[in-house]
Amino acid sequence: MGAKSSMKQFEIITESDARMLEIGETVALRRGGHITPLAADTLRERRVTVLADDRLDPSQLNLAPPAVITRVAIGSDHGGLALKAALTSSLRSKGIAVDDLGTLSAEPVDYPDTAARVAKAVARGEADAGIVIDGAGIGSAIAANKIDGIRAAVCHDLTTARYARQHNGANVLSLGATLIDQADALKIVDVWMSTPMLEPRYIRRLTKIRDLEQG
Amino acid sequence: MGAKSSMKQFEIITESDARMLEIGETVALRRGGHITPLAADTLRERRVTVLADDRLDPSQLNLAPPAVITRVAIGSDHGGLALKAALTSSLRSKGIAVDDLGTLSAEPVDYPDTAARVAKAVARGEADAGIVIDGAGIGSAIAANKIDGIRAAVCHDLTTARYARQHNGANVLSLGATLIDQADALKIVDVWMSTPMLEPRYIRRLTKIRDLEQG
Repeated sequence: MGAKSSMKQFEIITESDARMLEIGETVALRRGGHITPLAADTLRERRVTVLADDRLDPSQLNLAPPAVITRVAIGSDHGGLALKAALTSSLRSKGIAVDDLGTLSAEPVDYPDTAARVAKAVARGEADAGIVIDGAGIGSAIAANKIDGIRAAVCHDLTTARYARQHNGANVLSLGATLIDQADALKIVDVWMSTPMLEPRYIRRLTKIRDLEQG
Repeated sequence: MGAKSSMKQFEIITESDARMLEIGETVALRRGGHITPLAADTLRERRVTVLADDRLDPSQLNLAPPAVITRVAIGSDHGGLALKAALTSSLRSKGIAVDDLGTLSAEPVDYPDTAARVAKAVARGEADAGIVIDGAGIGSAIAANKIDGIRAAVCHDLTTARYARQHNGANVLSLGATLIDQADALKIVDVWMSTPMLEPRYIRRLTKIRDLEQG
């Protein structure tokens, strides 16, 4: 979090600036600032997030989820075991560190327990994002949203997966194991993980969600 | 809430018992108790909810949402105005009291504000249930879930509408105005409102969500 609050700000981003930025870094472009065409390509390649607005203060910028997800916490109830296993092995094969927080057996467990475990790991910064699974995904999303700092979204297709990040900065994805098949779930996770949150006006709305947590 | 915590408990429910119960009332049937066949028809007609388990204490039973919804609070952001108007007039034509908590104009507003207004009205008991609307429904559900006592679910079809009540006792329904059409939204609201929460093991899980709210 310390690194993010000293986010680099630019009036202009050139190709050589872009090359100096870290992969997945988020930077701010001041109002009226610009990006050279060559720099734009490099920024895209390096998955750099450019927030083209200087009206956000650092604490607001911190609300946007990390643009690049390298550590995922995952959890499911007994109904989501097979989907959890499939997602875990797919993510690991792509080099993502996955922390499987259970459940680990077919014995019935309560979705609020498994969802809260994942949500708390994300809230503590132990993972960049979380995935929770139960029969319909609805209960796990409700439970995860009870944890301060968590924005959990049930996604059932690629559109909701994209919206959940772009508009709502969802840092926990909830899936319904009985409602989507494994192949679709893999695609949903992929889109959700690779969609950044860029719009300052959407990020600003997250401050109002944070205020509800405190109120 | 006082009335509910003195919920009637039965060893046996006869036809004449059933006739004495109020429409939409929830009663408990002790373990090993039974319902006569004639009483069963009358209970169904009167939309009486029978919780067939005596292992739930009154504070747990209070977590289940009212089986019959007569007062609804509704709210949307600017993107949900048309859908809000359609739902409001449909519900009112069915004799449901609808409290429209805005927004009332096309000027952009922030979904956390409109969703929180509805969620707080439901949490204070001013409505039996709430409906929140924005472009995808995701953000409003996240915001509403930040309010203690609220379980908000995005429903995009009849299956999720039914699950949201049956399994999760959702007292706030969230709809995505850009993702479902009006006719489908009307059906979703209808199924969501008319599905009771009956399973003691599902109700018991709501106590774990309540515990997450408390910290």
